[in-house]
Amino acid sequence: MSLDAVLHRIDATLPEAMDRLFALLRIPSISTDPAFKPDCDRAADWLVDELNSLGFDASKRVTPGHPMVVAHSQGDGPRTLFYGHYDVQPVDPLSLWDRDPFDPAIEDTAKGLVIRARGSSDDKGQLMTFIEACRAFKEVTGTLPGPITIFLEGEEESGSPSLVPFMQANKEELTCDVALICDTGLFESTAPAIVTMLRGLASAQFTIHGPNKDLHSGMYGGAAINPNRVMTRILGRLHDDQGRVTVPGFYDGVKELPEHIRAQWQSLAFDHAKFLGDVGLSVPAGEQDRTPLEMIWSRPTAEINGMWGGYTGAGFKTVLPAEAHAKVSFRLVSEQDPDAIVAAFQTWVTDQLPADCRVEFHDVGGSPAGQMQITHPAFEQTRAALTEEWGRAASYVGCGGSIPIAGYFKTVLGMDALLVGFGKDDDQIHSPNEKYDVESFHKGIRSWARVIARMM
Amino acid sequence: MSLDAVLHRIDATLPEAMDRLFALLRIPSISTDPAFKPDCDRAADWLVDELNSLGFDASKRVTPGHPMVVAHSQGDGPRTLFYGHYDVQPVDPLSLWDRDPFDPAIEDTAKGLVIRARGSSDDKGQLMTFIEACRAFKEVTGTLPGPITIFLEGEEESGSPSLVPFMQANKEELTCDVALICDTGLFESTAPAIVTMLRGLASAQFTIHGPNKDLHSGMYGGAAINPNRVMTRILGRLHDDQGRVTVPGFYDGVKELPEHIRAQWQSLAFDHAKFLGDVGLSVPAGEQDRTPLEMIWSRPTAEINGMWGGYTGAGFKTVLPAEAHAKVSFRLVSEQDPDAIVAAFQTWVTDQLPADCRVEFHDVGGSPAGQMQITHPAFEQTRAALTEEWGRAASYVGCGGSIPIAGYFKTVLGMDALLVGFGKDDDQIHSPNEKYDVESFHKGIRSWARVIARMM
Repeated sequence: MSLDAVLHRIDATLPEAMDRLFALLRIPSISTDPAFKPDCDRAADWLVDELNSLGFDASKRVTPGHPMVVAHSQGDGPRTLFYGHYDVQPVDPLSLWDRDPFDPAIEDTAKGLVIRARGSSDDKGQLMTFIEACRAFKEVTGTLPGPITIFLEGEEESGSPSLVPFMQANKEELTCDVALICDTGLFESTAPAIVTMLRGLASAQFTIHGPNKDLHSGMYGGAAINPNRVMTRILGRLHDDQGRVTVPGFYDGVKELPEHIRAQWQSLAFDHAKFLGDVGLSVPAGEQDRTPLEMIWSRPTAEINGMWGGYTGAGFKTVLPAEAHAKVSFRLVSEQDPDAIVAAFQTWVTDQLPADCRVEFHDVGGSPAGQMQITHPAFEQTRAALTEEWGRAASYVGCGGSIPIAGYFKTVLGMDALLVGFGKDDDQIHSPNEKYDVESFHKGIRSWARVIARMM
Repeated sequence: MSLDAVLHRIDATLPEAMDRLFALLRIPSISTDPAFKPDCDRAADWLVDELNSLGFDASKRVTPGHPMVVAHSQGDGPRTLFYGHYDVQPVDPLSLWDRDPFDPAIEDTAKGLVIRARGSSDDKGQLMTFIEACRAFKEVTGTLPGPITIFLEGEEESGSPSLVPFMQANKEELTCDVALICDTGLFESTAPAIVTMLRGLASAQFTIHGPNKDLHSGMYGGAAINPNRVMTRILGRLHDDQGRVTVPGFYDGVKELPEHIRAQWQSLAFDHAKFLGDVGLSVPAGEQDRTPLEMIWSRPTAEINGMWGGYTGAGFKTVLPAEAHAKVSFRLVSEQDPDAIVAAFQTWVTDQLPADCRVEFHDVGGSPAGQMQITHPAFEQTRAALTEEWGRAASYVGCGGSIPIAGYFKTVLGMDALLVGFGKDDDQIHSPNEKYDVESFHKGIRSWARVIARMM
């Protein structure tokens, strides 16, 4: 087998690979909204067909939520698991999209060709890089490159409720030598990177109830408590003047960064002015005694992701609403316990309620932060392969986002995981006008071909 | 002319009067929402036709907003102006209505028969009480009862932007000896009352802008400012621990209640436990050193009528939104200046903005509080007529709501105004399932017949 032939095949068949990605992008597999359940199912079916046609033994596996896709190939040597997710974020506000989020297109931008669609970067474009690399091996050599398990889920954007039970129930089938996860990005959009530190996530939605119905602010204003007032009063105290989270016990289990990691991060020369400038900001808004990289990689946060209460339509309505709502999430680091964080938050909110108000919590959950051990040889093999493809040294870095799967591979299946991805900072994942660079897709496929060649 | 004959006629023709009210209630004349502009126009046309058919000289009068309806009848003696408004509040959340808000029906409830529909109490049911009283006079005596001007507007629920310019442009036509305004209620739902003290209203909608687009809280959380955090932090400080409004200068011009008014209010023996208990509350939430009647009649307030930002759909979206929004209004008393209040609020918000955020205000406006002089003989005539109809002494009271028209009659047209109405505390005006008691409608018509008989 010649790696060069595989790479050449990848270059020559890029248009067909993009056609296949587009077919997947056209399926609106939004996992958080029950209205799109049939579409999630359809995305899983599409992937099963695709993998079977490549020679994998692939099947759709039912869960209480959206289905899993599991596929195996045979061969000698260490078995490698590849993970991705086929579900996508909601698309609202739809009015801010320049085109239908589920009608993908190639756009020629000032920064090069991009694939525009919801899920193009997170995570359909990324998961297809690995599948297309396998296809190139198959087409050049006649067989898949080795013993691979592909494991794709459809609930990553909604907290992966079925993931751990499914892993536990299929432990023997899923346990491999090492795992590859493709759901991260290039460092500063240019340098290949392997993420070894991931933040966890805890979240809670809650409603503050006051009067038993909406009231007229003329008749009741002054005498009746307004849940909007209570909500802002409580959440307005979530951070202190220094940007620290005020919930008691929130920082329990947060470790200081080891000196050798701090030194490595400093050598990355992170350009935070550009990072913030690209989104119209200039001043790091987190804990004032921390560096910007610490704020996004190694420090925990609390964010109000959504809030609403009272009249929000056109014009004015002088109403005192019966209730106010918020969705709050926390990014966790080190050994912070998601359950303890959410419990502390619930207590903190409840303790601040005035007379006549009550609070109701739902959609409460979380997953801890992840810290990879980098002793398995696959780490250095992958770092070498990425360095070769991108012409820049690949680094071990942190990631502000939460990819709980990495922790579960370790705790449930005993595997270390390599987080490698080709997203860029301006991909606008979770936002309107999400895109994935054609370069990310193309060099991503080539990167996996090189990684596979070194590992198998 | 026999008043008894008129009252008898009112009793005998109540079903037909309700049919006419229902026809008006079926028109969804929501003034705040531009989508309902043709319906506001249709409501004005319906009233013009109705008044002309009664022998008034009625016409629809164009304004830059929704039209006015003006009608005159001739006769000897002092000319009286009657004011009401044909526009209604928005109906959302529609899901909390037990029936179509614009498909009125009589319902037999534990507390008696009610007319259920948006606008049944505020203000279509109320304005029709006066028109039906005029109709009874016409049908019994052959002529309308005297020199009356009927003046109906369609912008009361959206701040009456066209009202003062229209009054100024038609000053001679509209100036009468005294004005009657039917947009208030019975005291504690049982005793007739004439409102002589009204709160004013100032309001502002604003948007806090942060990043130039929605961001992923994993990638940016910690480093990027979240407008929801800024909004709650600012509005969470709008009241202090004692329920006082913290905006500097807010209490400028607020007068203490005169002792004789305080004594009269104490004699009303206001049952605040029932007032709050009816809406599921128990503790007065305003300034802690004030009585409940002061809180709703003679003290100013600040309320968050609506707020929204970020993801508010089903499930979770870990987004940092680009902007957060709020609608805030203030009930004003005594000599508080609405323009100064809004300006102070804008400064207060702007001064608290952190780096990288900006604020945009719109829909800013207001009207001052009103204090009636009760020396005109119409006040005592009306008080006697109401006492006679309801079998309980009518009182001079305050009102927490804002009916700016009362102030404008004085300042623009030099008239004193009598605020008399038949709404009840459980009418749910501005809320889902608004209703007007059949008793309010029936005895309201009879009340106006008695007032007219004493005044003309």
